[in-house]
Amino acid sequence: MENIPTNIVQRDPDQKEFLQAVSELLETVKPVLDRNPEYRSQAIIERITEPERVIIFRVPWMDDQGRVQVNRGFRVEMNSAIGPYKGGLRFHPSVTLSIIKFLAFEQVFKNSLTTLQMGGGKGGADFDPKGRSDAEVMRFCQAFMTELSRHIGPNTDVPAGDIGVGAREIGYLFGMYKKIRNEFTGVITGKGLSWGGSLIRPQATGYGLVYFTAEMLAESGESLEGKHCLISGSGNVAQYTAEKIFQLGGRTYAV
Amino acid sequence: MENIPTNIVQRDPDQKEFLQAVSELLETVKPVLDRNPEYRSQAIIERITEPERVIIFRVPWMDDQGRVQVNRGFRVEMNSAIGPYKGGLRFHPSVTLSIIKFLAFEQVFKNSLTTLQMGGGKGGADFDPKGRSDAEVMRFCQAFMTELSRHIGPNTDVPAGDIGVGAREIGYLFGMYKKIRNEFTGVITGKGLSWGGSLIRPQATGYGLVYFTAEMLAESGESLEGKHCLISGSGNVAQYTAEKIFQLGGRTYAV
Amino acid sequence: MENIPTNIVQRDPDQKEFLQAVSELLETVKPVLDRNPEYRSQAIIERITEPERVIIFRVPWMDDQGRVQVNRGFRVEMNSAIGPYKGGLRFHPSVTLSIIKFLAFEQVFKNSLTTLQMGGGKGGADFDPKGRSDAEVMRFCQAFMTELSRHIGPNTDVPAGDIGVGAREIGYLFGMYKKIRNEFTGVITGKGLSWGGSLIRPQATGYGLVYFTAEMLAESGESLEGKHCLISGSGNVAQYTAEKIFQLGGRTYAV
Amino acid sequence: MENIPTNIVQRDPDQKEFLQAVSELLETVKPVLDRNPEYRSQAIIERITEPERVIIFRVPWMDDQGRVQVNRGFRVEMNSAIGPYKGGLRFHPSVTLSIIKFLAFEQVFKNSLTTLQMGGGKGGADFDPKGRSDAEVMRFCQAFMTELSRHIGPNTDVPAGDIGVGAREIGYLFGMYKKIRNEFTGVITGKGLSWGGSLIRPQATGYGLVYFTAEMLAESGESLEGKHCLISGSGNVAQYTAEKIFQLGGRTYAV
Amino acid sequence: MENIPTNIVQRDPDQKEFLQAVSELLETVKPVLDRNPEYRSQAIIERITEPERVIIFRVPWMDDQGRVQVNRGFRVEMNSAIGPYKGGLRFHPSVTLSIIKFLAFEQVFKNSLTTLQMGGGKGGADFDPKGRSDAEVMRFCQAFMTELSRHIGPNTDVPAGDIGVGAREIGYLFGMYKKIRNEFTGVITGKGLSWGGSLIRPQATGYGLVYFTAEMLAESGESLEGKHCLISGSGNVAQYTAEKIFQLGGRTYAV
Amino acid sequence: MENIPTNIVQRDPDQKEFLQAVSELLETVKPVLDRNPEYRSQAIIERITEPERVIIFRVPWMDDQGRVQVNRGFRVEMNSAIGPYKGGLRFHPSVTLSIIKFLAFEQVFKNSLTTLQMGGGKGGADFDPKGRSDAEVMRFCQAFMTELSRHIGPNTDVPAGDIGVGAREIGYLFGMYKKIRNEFTGVITGKGLSWGGSLIRPQATGYGLVYFTAEMLAESGESLEGKHCLISGSGNVAQYTAEKIFQLGGRTYAV
Repeated sequence: MENIPTNIVQRDPDQKEFLQAVSELLETVKPVLDRNPEYRSQAIIERITEPERVIIFRVPWMDDQGRVQVNRGFRVEMNSAIGPYKGGLRFHPSVTLSIIKFLAFEQVFKNSLTTLQMGGGKGGADFDPKGRSDAEVMRFCQAFMTELSRHIGPNTDVPAGDIGVGAREIGYLFGMYKKIRNEFTGVITGKGLSWGGSLIRPQATGYGLVYFTAEMLAESGESLEGKHCLISGSGNVAQYTAEKIFQLGGRTYAV
Repeated sequence: MENIPTNIVQRDPDQKEFLQAVSELLETVKPVLDRNPEYRSQAIIERITEPERVIIFRVPWMDDQGRVQVNRGFRVEMNSAIGPYKGGLRFHPSVTLSIIKFLAFEQVFKNSLTTLQMGGGKGGADFDPKGRSDAEVMRFCQAFMTELSRHIGPNTDVPAGDIGVGAREIGYLFGMYKKIRNEFTGVITGKGLSWGGSLIRPQATGYGLVYFTAEMLAESGESLEGKHCLISGSGNVAQYTAEKIFQLGGRTYAV
Repeated sequence: MENIPTNIVQRDPDQKEFLQAVSELLETVKPVLDRNPEYRSQAIIERITEPERVIIFRVPWMDDQGRVQVNRGFRVEMNSAIGPYKGGLRFHPSVTLSIIKFLAFEQVFKNSLTTLQMGGGKGGADFDPKGRSDAEVMRFCQAFMTELSRHIGPNTDVPAGDIGVGAREIGYLFGMYKKIRNEFTGVITGKGLSWGGSLIRPQATGYGLVYFTAEMLAESGESLEGKHCLISGSGNVAQYTAEKIFQLGGRTYAV
Repeated sequence: MENIPTNIVQRDPDQKEFLQAVSELLETVKPVLDRNPEYRSQAIIERITEPERVIIFRVPWMDDQGRVQVNRGFRVEMNSAIGPYKGGLRFHPSVTLSIIKFLAFEQVFKNSLTTLQMGGGKGGADFDPKGRSDAEVMRFCQAFMTELSRHIGPNTDVPAGDIGVGAREIGYLFGMYKKIRNEFTGVITGKGLSWGGSLIRPQATGYGLVYFTAEMLAESGESLEGKHCLISGSGNVAQYTAEKIFQLGGRTYAV
Repeated sequence: MENIPTNIVQRDPDQKEFLQAVSELLETVKPVLDRNPEYRSQAIIERITEPERVIIFRVPWMDDQGRVQVNRGFRVEMNSAIGPYKGGLRFHPSVTLSIIKFLAFEQVFKNSLTTLQMGGGKGGADFDPKGRSDAEVMRFCQAFMTELSRHIGPNTDVPAGDIGVGAREIGYLFGMYKKIRNEFTGVITGKGLSWGGSLIRPQATGYGLVYFTAEMLAESGESLEGKHCLISGSGNVAQYTAEKIFQLGGRTYAV
Repeated sequence: MENIPTNIVQRDPDQKEFLQAVSELLETVKPVLDRNPEYRSQAIIERITEPERVIIFRVPWMDDQGRVQVNRGFRVEMNSAIGPYKGGLRFHPSVTLSIIKFLAFEQVFKNSLTTLQMGGGKGGADFDPKGRSDAEVMRFCQAFMTELSRHIGPNTDVPAGDIGVGAREIGYLFGMYKKIRNEFTGVITGKGLSWGGSLIRPQATGYGLVYFTAEMLAESGESLEGKHCLISGSGNVAQYTAEKIFQLGGRTYAV
């Protein structure tokens, strides 16, 4: 990590995932920084690696046995220089501040490269929806949103789903937001089609990946026609990737 | 730290100061927990060791050379079960999340033992006022409060001073709060006497310490009269401790 | 009303209009309910027949003789499952809670059948604009909106006109909303064309009715050409119905 | 009910309890009204019998079997001419709009006769806490407060307990209010002593009754000493009434 | 006006009343400024003579003949360094920005000399209540407060009465504030005793004047006993001045 | 100025620029007023010449020498009858209330003639950006927006740039708005292309002027081809006017 300024490493010596993401980004943009020394002298690196705001909050909820459980919720509002914070929510036991900061940091660049006016953020909780009943997931989501609702808004911060947060969780989250704020706004993406969601959003990531690949191949005069493909992962994205590969003439050998 | 539940240690393995404070507290209240097993079964320990809300925020400001500096601000809103969050702000390079959580955790018990209706919190920044000009301290305080003002209020969270935050800093902080929120309320303690502060507050901690000591001595039939005293520290508290010791007949040999 | 669950009838035994609307709806959707027993077991009927929120408020105003008059205002926010509450305001002496609930209940289904993202609501007052001077109507509308403005908003609840609430009343209502909230938003529909209204809205209901009828006739190979028509009613809707019938070749014999 | 103006009866022909309360009040104050004809001509009766604001709301919650239950919540904000609305919350299956309006109407006069600056209100739900588990009561209270929190505040409307709403329910209600509004304020009375409540509040109503009786007896030269007493009721009020009667020398024969 | 800094005069060359007040103040405090040159170098005079905020607003209302009248409302929030803005409202045709600024400027010093934590402000309108019916005054006050309510609050700015604004006007103003903000707070002083006002406030200014005079006389060994007094003015203040002079043994010869 | 009603002149006898603008407008619309006497009898002139709201505020900031400077900020919210207030901000030493009112008054008509739903407003400060460092301009803009942010919003009042307020100033202003309000909304126009601005906005005024001129010429069968042009001014507008004239075949002889 020799390419990260010392003071950034020293501020978070234990956040390995976040520091790795910073290191990779800085390596990538090194030529740009070298050509524009004012980016370094004006502390652009220090400013863009430090989240504008992080909210960490207690999420107490009751399981089906009537026991109180305590989880930790996160929202990292990384950067809003070009638009409202935008990025998903992840519910998984592996979630830590370092993981969420790493994802939020990458989201800033992913969003800006779309050329849309969106800043970057990410959030979630160390809660594991696997093995939980619908009622437990609902109670967790409602407790999570009771705090999160204070910090988001259609022009402020717009979460979406991610690992562990699908249409069911988005529904519970949006429902609680609507109860507390009494507004039906575009404050969260990934809603079901019948209550405010976008058409074919479940397909979007997988299809998009294949369209992008096809464009890249076309650049070198090739196509997916007859190509042998391997997909890393087996969730929602993988499913629609395989579907679109098939439609474009490719063959998926493993998922 | 064997007396801390494993899941608490695993959540913050690197926060040594915080875990030590939890460990000491749990050791102290162990007899109470043993007599009241429902405190453990109802997850009271998990609930009281997890902050209700933590806000970490970027504080960009400009130094006297026109360079942008980036500091990190904190507010740990630990527990509001019996009243609004209450606790000081510390500006010192040693400030980390672990330090602030440790102080906020102890503040919960310090406040509740006063028998007043106050919850506990703590905040600050890794900013060092030492060696900075008045104008730099002012600009830092204004940038710090621009974000903090969103999260505090007379019935929500009431900061005060601590190391590095004296009457000057409180003045800059309250001034910015007043500009942004347009309310002159009791949102912060430690104000100067001429603009809303309490009488003899600077003396309060030092005098109180000596009064308490004198009461303790009186319990065993003794007094400060003629006692030889050593004071650890040499700041505002030490100064008024020495003064009151002298008034009550004691002699301070070292500060 | 044997097809309404007992507990619904018992909650509002005196609301005849509302119970009749519920009865008719339930009769219509009975086949759907029979095919989907989970709709009954998950209390969908209980949930959709109970307004999410009802606000009833005192509307004191002064008539041209300087006497204080007291009317009762209503806003029934029936259901927001798929969008903000949406529905008209009726000023008529016959207005009661039962009438407004009946209209709000039907509005939920009317709005959802448009396939737009709109929930359902309805409101009004037992005030009779007939025989009142412009100044009296203005003072009533301003008093009515002083309370209503607290509960509506472009993403929350969007009223419109209905019986007794035309462009004049909408103007007084929107003007008061704008004064109190200091926002020029799409919080109410039916505004005049020169201050924010939609083009040919006065014609919309009448024209739409005839277009719909023409489509229905076309299904069976017929058209309005030469048809003899009777229109029930003689207000704004009837006027534009007749106009469009005439344009499409039909003849209106009675209004 | 011949002493009630016709238009008041016609507005709520089915609200027997409310109309009876109005009738009794008007009979009591008839001499005052006769001496001050301007009270009638200025519509004081119409204004004071019409609630300034009524909120009726759906309270959906999940019972221990995982079934969604739907209750109806009420808050009648009757009159704020001399101070914020103040009055209890009742959770009981007998609760209807008529009952709550009758109680709120009486509360206006009870409060003003204390000579304190308090208006009058009342609220509740047709929910029966009897036979419900703690977890069910908690979930109901949280759902109830999610809506009510929007309408109350320390200077706006200050609920308290009543039948079915004791320290347990107040705790769940205040906890939810605090989570949503993020303020620890005097928005509700009847809190437990350890988290913001007043000293000996449970005793207040019963003791106060006996003190008042003792004062009345003293007026006619008598005392409770040796008196035989009958208490109608057997709850919290009755218990402390008996205790104080005993302390003042009386004997309670039946509860 | 040679003692006023040029830039202050040039900013408001036409505000004679305001500039005269500034001139008199600066003459009075000249010795202090001379002893403390840092007051001048730190721009204290520029800061204290410039209002922190001035709001000027259109007040349209309808007279008894149904004609729209347009008045101009003012609120000068002069200085809040030591507390919320505090100062009266004047309704009089002579009201201009210069007059209100002059009064607000003096109010800053009057308030701070009480040693209470109050800043200074003043407001009003060029409306003449003389010759207007109660209904006209009510409609004007309601229109005036519809805008003013946005800018005041118990910890922000607390108006009171002044010329043309007595208990009647305060009642109309506070009533409208309460309707719009839905809070019964200490946002305005001068309320009637039966709806939130202070005891013997009408007497306070006159009585206070005489108490102050009596104290001054006592300093030189004299008293009001037998003194001949002349009172300049004949309103509320003069009336209670005469009453108290009489009680303390003096004789008022002219009012 | 004989065509202005006396009471309008008397309200602001010293505001020459504003009164001249009113005079010119009234002269222009005289034929309309003569044909529609109800415009005069309903006080339309009085209503449209009086700003709905004016905010004047102190702007204290620190220059590079560490001295506090005090400027005066303005926002005139002239008229919102057909939409939110809209109009630029001017930073120039010549700025006075009269100048800003004159510009805001004209803006009402300029905006309404676009047939878009926009009201009119204008603002600024008597601050001179010329000769100031970037850091000084930044600190002034941040101080200015700390107050202005309270009064504007995407549906309330939408400022833009004007003399002395270009992309640099808009950037500082919008940045401070975003920090305080925590919303990335269309509250200000003139933003840079990379952070939310519109495409080719810098060109818009100059290009538009030439397009308009070309249309006018086309009406009389002429074109810009070969025309000799003189441009009054030499700023941003002049630059793009010359560019477009050149593109359409004209020749600019002087700027």
